[in-house]
Amino acid sequence: MLDETITSIRPLDEAAMAGARARQDTLTKPPGSMGRLEELSVRLSGIQGKAAPVIREKAVITMAGDHGIVAEKIGNWPQEVTAQMVLNFLGGGAGINVLARQVGARIIVVDMGIATVLKADSRLLSRKIAPGTKNMANGPAMTVEEAGKAVTAGIKIVAGEIEKGLDIVGTGDMGIGNTTASSAICAVMTGRAVTEVTGRGTGLTDDQLKHKIDVINQALDVNHPDRSRPLEVLAKVGGFEIGGLAGVMLGAAARRVPVVIDGFISGAAALIACALAPQAKEYLIASHLSAEAGHGITLQHLGLKPLLELDMRLGEGTGAALGIFLAEAAARVLSEMATFAEAGVSGSGEG
Amino acid sequence: MLDETITSIRPLDEAAMAGARARQDTLTKPPGSMGRLEELSVRLSGIQGKAAPVIREKAVITMAGDHGIVAEKIGNWPQEVTAQMVLNFLGGGAGINVLARQVGARIIVVDMGIATVLKADSRLLSRKIAPGTKNMANGPAMTVEEAGKAVTAGIKIVAGEIEKGLDIVGTGDMGIGNTTASSAICAVMTGRAVTEVTGRGTGLTDDQLKHKIDVINQALDVNHPDRSRPLEVLAKVGGFEIGGLAGVMLGAAARRVPVVIDGFISGAAALIACALAPQAKEYLIASHLSAEAGHGITLQHLGLKPLLELDMRLGEGTGAALGIFLAEAAARVLSEMATFAEAGVSGSGEG
Repeated sequence: MLDETITSIRPLDEAAMAGARARQDTLTKPPGSMGRLEELSVRLSGIQGKAAPVIREKAVITMAGDHGIVAEKIGNWPQEVTAQMVLNFLGGGAGINVLARQVGARIIVVDMGIATVLKADSRLLSRKIAPGTKNMANGPAMTVEEAGKAVTAGIKIVAGEIEKGLDIVGTGDMGIGNTTASSAICAVMTGRAVTEVTGRGTGLTDDQLKHKIDVINQALDVNHPDRSRPLEVLAKVGGFEIGGLAGVMLGAAARRVPVVIDGFISGAAALIACALAPQAKEYLIASHLSAEAGHGITLQHLGLKPLLELDMRLGEGTGAALGIFLAEAAARVLSEMATFAEAGVSGSGEG
Repeated sequence: MLDETITSIRPLDEAAMAGARARQDTLTKPPGSMGRLEELSVRLSGIQGKAAPVIREKAVITMAGDHGIVAEKIGNWPQEVTAQMVLNFLGGGAGINVLARQVGARIIVVDMGIATVLKADSRLLSRKIAPGTKNMANGPAMTVEEAGKAVTAGIKIVAGEIEKGLDIVGTGDMGIGNTTASSAICAVMTGRAVTEVTGRGTGLTDDQLKHKIDVINQALDVNHPDRSRPLEVLAKVGGFEIGGLAGVMLGAAARRVPVVIDGFISGAAALIACALAPQAKEYLIASHLSAEAGHGITLQHLGLKPLLELDMRLGEGTGAALGIFLAEAAARVLSEMATFAEAGVSGSGEG
């Protein structure tokens, strides 16, 4: 399924994009005056294969997983918080719930590998690969088979949502310890030093940050991940939710649905997804630049420019929800604005 | 009325802001992880004087006026476009209509001084000071009395809207020639050279830009505006819609309603408003950084940091509409997110 998905990701639809560009220049505004929203509208056209892209059905897929690396005390929050926050998502009280409500996006909460045993709940998709990854400081976080299962689960979930109706999807994450895994992935895939791509996560002191960097370096020394084998990188130093999100990106791209990626953890998933399928990059929209170190490097490596820069670093899909709003604005401007002819407005002297 | 409005603008409510900050730290997220949305939520608290600010009733006030300076051929679009675009606003086909619909804001379209005679229309507020300003290259654009009338009209309009129910207001403009007036105001109020604060408006060539700069320098030479007399600056080199928008800012600030300012023209209005009442600045939220030269200098002078940077330069209030969305997001996060205690989530090891 993974190979089939990868090979079915096509280039953007150039004819649709040409149609969108032509329409932009007939709308009642100076050419180019909506700036990056115009560029975004054209890309949405190319993704959806429609000169007038539609953003009506919206969803954020928020995937949760635990990380064995927490045994190395790389953060301040206890592992139970992953499960507690998932219950908060189901109860509607988290940041992503607030912003998804505002933008009219449904939330799909997925257990990709939470360590805590959760009661069955119809609002929670259980795709648990294992109750948390293993400690990557001592060996691989998961097997390559498990990594493949995580990615495939993501592909299936987004395919199911597209079946129900979905014009755009945002990615989100929850997992205590997952900035550590994301920094490790980022270091491997971009070739940058661990010190450059490791940040303070939920709020570390200088000493704690130094320890986190040491632990990531140890995980890389023990596992020797090879960037030319992205699934192996995911297995050695990744996480179940990161694999699932990479699958969401690939599955959406294969079905011509735009993906608004959130912050640093979604960025790490994008590094895996785009290493597996470089043509997937055109389907990804970077919502915001996270305050987490390493995210800027990740987006630069991917060749993506974030829409927002608000010093956010919450994850969950909160940045993606804001990005979905901007994508909808871009699509609406393109399809709802009147043309010069329709409105009876004189064109510029340039035309 | 102007003096009364200016003296009634109070400092932000520190107690409400302290309450907002305290609540932010109890919400189910790492402290500070919503970045600038947290700061914004605290400022909204201080403006509204409520620990939990509410952004429900939203409006964009878009003011239109014509400029005698068009006789100097400083742009590409004919003057009739001001009136034609106002009809487009009334018909719902302009960029601001699309974005205001998306964010749920009503639009108040005001004729502050359009040159074209428009048919009476119940959807258009007519506050025409005169059918366009005079050519400021030859003398003052308007009298000081007219400048005062324009500002007072803005105060009254926003007061009326607040009466109907208004939690936040965005400012927008339409007026062929108004980037020229705004550059002149910006040069005077910030003390920067005309070359630094003059841009390509709707899309000028290098030669046209040079001509526009020459015309602005001539207007400054002829009129000698003095930055210590802001109403006089408005009269000499401003516009009716710019004066009206300055009034909207002052009137809203006096009634503790946050004002989301749009791009360069709204920025010029803010320079006048804040010179008349420096304490009004705390009530202004800069929505975006316009691609128009001079806007960055304007915001820097005002001490405001834009939320968005999307290379937009359309005006009308389009940037303000996007800023209203972000202000609503900030307020919703603060008031709707669950606390650690409510959600049963363990706090961080830091706490």
